[in-house]
Formats: sequence, structure tokens, C-alpha cells
Amino acid sequence: MTDLWGIVPAGGAGTRLWPLSRANSPKFLLDLTGAGRTLLQQTCDRLEPLTEGRIIVVTGAAHEAAVSSQVSARVIAEPSPRDSMAAIGLAAAIVEREDPDAVVGSFAADQVIGDAAAFGACVAEAVEVAAGGQLVTLGIVPTAPSEAFGYIHATRRYLDYPTALAVESFVEKPDRDRAIVYLAAGGYWWNAGMFVCRPTVLLDLLAENHPELAAGVREIAADPASMDRIWPGLEKIAIDHAVAEPAAASGRVVTVPGTFAWDDIGDFAALAGDSGLTTHGDVVEVSTSGLVINQTDRPVAVVGIDDVIVVQTADATLVTTRGSTQRVKAVVDRLREEGRTDLL
Amino acid sequence: MTDLWGIVPAGGAGTRLWPLSRANSPKFLLDLTGAGRTLLQQTCDRLEPLTEGRIIVVTGAAHEAAVSSQVSARVIAEPSPRDSMAAIGLAAAIVEREDPDAVVGSFAADQVIGDAAAFGACVAEAVEVAAGGQLVTLGIVPTAPSEAFGYIHATRRYLDYPTALAVESFVEKPDRDRAIVYLAAGGYWWNAGMFVCRPTVLLDLLAENHPELAAGVREIAADPASMDRIWPGLEKIAIDHAVAEPAAASGRVVTVPGTFAWDDIGDFAALAGDSGLTTHGDVVEVSTSGLVINQTDRPVAVVGIDDVIVVQTADATLVTTRGSTQRVKAVVDRLREEGRTDLL
Repeated sequence: MTDLWGIVPAGGAGTRLWPLSRANSPKFLLDLTGAGRTLLQQTCDRLEPLTEGRIIVVTGAAHEAAVSSQVSARVIAEPSPRDSMAAIGLAAAIVEREDPDAVVGSFAADQVIGDAAAFGACVAEAVEVAAGGQLVTLGIVPTAPSEAFGYIHATRRYLDYPTALAVESFVEKPDRDRAIVYLAAGGYWWNAGMFVCRPTVLLDLLAENHPELAAGVREIAADPASMDRIWPGLEKIAIDHAVAEPAAASGRVVTVPGTFAWDDIGDFAALAGDSGLTTHGDVVEVSTSGLVINQTDRPVAVVGIDDVIVVQTADATLVTTRGSTQRVKAVVDRLREEGRTDLL
Repeated sequence: MTDLWGIVPAGGAGTRLWPLSRANSPKFLLDLTGAGRTLLQQTCDRLEPLTEGRIIVVTGAAHEAAVSSQVSARVIAEPSPRDSMAAIGLAAAIVEREDPDAVVGSFAADQVIGDAAAFGACVAEAVEVAAGGQLVTLGIVPTAPSEAFGYIHATRRYLDYPTALAVESFVEKPDRDRAIVYLAAGGYWWNAGMFVCRPTVLLDLLAENHPELAAGVREIAADPASMDRIWPGLEKIAIDHAVAEPAAASGRVVTVPGTFAWDDIGDFAALAGDSGLTTHGDVVEVSTSGLVINQTDRPVAVVGIDDVIVVQTADATLVTTRGSTQRVKAVVDRLREEGRTDLL
């Protein structure tokens, strides 16, 4: 059995989840599902048995203390945001030095996964494939023609693994019509941004197209004191563009399809049930459907309104509908323009 | 010129305007129109020049202090609610003793009137007719086939007055189809519950069908100390049923049609404009229409939702739509059932 290290990039503002998600308490630090654990904690909970506690969370310096108070993982604080490749690359470079025969798996801190056992089985197969030198991505079985996700196109079995498939290409977020075609055709999987591979494989792939970025994170890993000098000059790029897409083009990416329920909770519609009314907190409802979250002791009354989304926090109230939740970030933009930083 | 006394019954909870309207701060004590004056104050402002300050407000004991702090009128405190006939009857009985040659006009404390000059002209004609011994009601020219109001049916001119009409009957709130017929036919006016007559005419009409009620209010007027003994036994009945309808049946009611804009602000739909978005307070809006009232320093953000009604007060938030505002009272019913009296 090859050792697995969990890398958990914990970033992103989640502005479409305002006023729950804020600059100082972003999505991953919140218990959005009412599970009693934050999304970050649930992510680490899932990885704990698979990694025997070898977990590195990479987060912004502003959230280092909050992350450390929530989980017992090792925490790397980024001096500034440099996108996912620098964050995951640095953690991989650290593992490359400390445990070069291990495999790393990157799992975002703000995703929800429904079936821990199915997730564990999927990761186990991914680790096995990755130990052979491939870049492995977990592909989510699509349940709807979603325009919100990129897709992984893969139809051919990889060697004699039970479920692994050779990846032909990564596909950008499609429009509605194309998403319907993908779902009908089969062989397309949602790209959840979960990668598993040997750290040296990841960094060598990175070095092919972004040699300075690969060298930079390796240098920081060798000499942590160099962080403040090197980090600000690192290229800002997502891991998909930096490594996954070029590697797929040259046939070095494998996907292991995951059948577990998965959601990235991109907006409030994801928190509302498919029908009826979901409520949290003190809510008086009359003939209403949608989602009402009230974090205060001031009751929220909703009367005769379908697909409504109401979120009341200590200092703000949001009212929208299921179909408009993607536009919530416009409110955050407006508040930022007006300099109302206490509300961001 | 006959003296006019203004009688202003200030009662009613306005539960369809919750959470603005509350047991301790009912509709008439609120500045619902953003005019800088409460509905009660606006009512007295209108009557001031017509009555030279002869105004009697009749309100519940619980609101006596609040009413006195808002207006300089004489205030009668009802020990308990006995409906509009007892309230108006008692004020009329007081005027009957103090100024028997005067005319009284009853005007509810919670109505909005758009054109003070047109209102004044209408009242002046009503006073003139009333001085002749008739019971006069102000009829509002209907602008829509409303099911929310009762109607006054009157088609024949009364004597040679410029606009007064002899009332044939009072008509209960119609259904939609009948309201459309009324509007098309003409000769139907909204009954705003505004009555003008000599106090003795009112009380003698009352005595015909409700002799104990008429005697009761006259006794209290003669001996205010008898209030607590007599008041609780008075019949609970509205002035329309007690006096206006029987008098109309015997041809003793005249209406003076009023062309001024009028609204009783029965629900939040009346406060929303006909289109677009009306906002009061700290509101961030994105592609929304309807009405948003925010009385707090906690911003309300509304995103992509049509005909929404949002009202946020210090201790509660209401979210509904223009089409459901009549059902807001169901929230108040629910809160009462749950014993949450602080929210009523």
C-alpha cells in the first residue's frame, strides 16, 4: 500500500453565498449543511482514515488561525493568493522531500460528498493508479446537464483497473445544449478538481510548461525561509491549466469515476431541496417553497412565495429566488464599490 | 357656516401590515407613506382647517398616551373595544351637549387622502347637506373594480346641491365580476366610512334600532364618571350596520362623491408602486420590482425577484409577494397561537 497525503487547498470567497460566506469567514469555514461540522472539517474527516492523518491544508494567511482552530492538520499559510497550482504545488513539493514514495491527493476544502465509503474506494483505486506514475483525476458521474462544471471526457478503460479510464481531454464548462449532449452520450464526467499523483510526477509535469513555478515551490519546500521572497513572484495559474490539460493532451491522465453524491455548493440553490421548503432557525412560513436560513433570534416570516431564498445573518438579509442565486455576487460587488467592507 | 367637529376613530390592528403594524404601534400611529407624519397626524392635519381645531380622537386606552403625544386633539380613551358605533356615538353625544348646532364628521385615522383641497370642498358640501338634517357619507369615485371595499349606490341628484346624490343603498364587498359591473355601470362609489351629520340626527337614528346604545353613549357624555360602568355593556356594532344601512333604506342618506385620491392602506400592496421597485432604508437591489422597507441598519439585499415585498424591522422580517399581502395576517395568527406576544 502506498502512503497517501491529503492536500486541501482552502481558498475562495464564495461570494454567491453572501451573506453567509464572508471575507473573514469564507465558505469552507462554515457549517453550510447543518452537519455540525464545517465544510473544511468534513473534508478532513473524509481524508483522515485514508491518509492516517497526513493532511496539509493550504490557506490564506488571514485564515490560518481559523483553520488551525478547526482541524488538526498541518497548515501552510500563503502570504498572498497565487491560485491553485502554487498552493497545491508547494504542498506537493513538501511531500516530495519528506515522503518521496508517497502519493498526494488534492481535495478542495469546500465540497460536499455524500457517501464516504464510495469516496474511499474511489480514492483507493486512484492511489493505486497514481503509484504507477499517472496523473489521476476523480470524475463525478453527472446527474444533470450542468453548465456549472467542466467535464472530463474518457471512454476507454485504463489497463485492467476495475473502473479507471484513460482521459482523452478536459472540456470547459459547456452551454446547456452541449451539456445535454454530454449527459446523453456518456463518457463525460464532472471535473471536481480532485487530483491524485506522485508529488514528483506532478512537479515534473509542471516543470515541462511552467519551469519557474515548479522550481519556485521546490525551493520554498527546501528552504521555508525563502517563502516571503519567492512566493509573490510565482505565476498565478489553476492546476487544471498548468498541468492537467497539457498532460491529458499527451495521454498521461487517468480518471476514476466516482458514484458518490457530490456538490461544490456554488450557490444557495444547492442548499435548497429539490422541492418544498427547507428552513434553518426561527422561520414562520405560510404556503412557501425554497430555502430560508435565519441565524438570528429575529423571526423571518415568508408568505405565499415559491422558490424563494431568504438568508438572514446578524448584520444583513438576502432575498432572492432559486433561479437568481448565481447573481448574488452582484450584491457583493455593489457593497465593495460602496466601500462597505464590514459587510464583505 | 355651520361648525364642523372632526371625530377620528383610531382603532384596528392592521395585522396585514405586520411587522410594521403592531399591537402597541398600530397602523394609524405609523408614518407608512414616508410623509414625515403618521396616518393619524395626516388625518388631523386635513381636519384642522375644516374644524378650527375641534377634533376628538377616540382610541383604545393602550394608545391614549401615544395619540396625545402625536396630535393636539381632545382624546377619548375607550376602556375596551366596542366597535365603531360606540366610539363615534360617544364623541357625537359629547358634541351634542357642547355644541348642539354643530355638525360632526367621522374620519378614520388610518386612511390616506391625496388632494387636501378636493377633500375640503367635498367635506364643505357634506356639512351643508348635513346641516339640513341628512346623514351624509363621502363616496369615493372608484378607480378599479375593487373587491376590498363596500359600495354606495346612488344615481339621483339630491336637491340642487352641486354634487350630492340621494343614496339608494349600501352594498357589501362584491366579488370580482360584480365589482366590474359596478365600475362599468356607474352610480357606485366606494364606501370609505366617512359620515357627516348633526350629532342629534346620528343619535336619534341610532335610537330607532339600538335604543340602549344611543342612551348609553348619551349617559356617558352627560356623566363621564359613568364610563367604566356603562361602556362594557354597550353593543358591539359598526356604524354602517347600526345607522347608515337602515337610514338608507328609509331614504335619509345622501352621498357627496369625492374625486380625491384615497386609500385605506389595507396591505403592503397598497404601499408598493404600480411598477418598478419602491425602497425605504438601506437596500441593495439587483433586478427587482416591488417594495422593500428596511427600518434597521442591517442592509437588505434583493436579487432578481419580481413583485417582492420585504419588510425588515428591529425584531422581525417579512418576505412575501404583491399577490399574497392579504395573507400576512396568517403570520400574526401563527405568532399569537405560539404565544409570541412580543412580536404581535
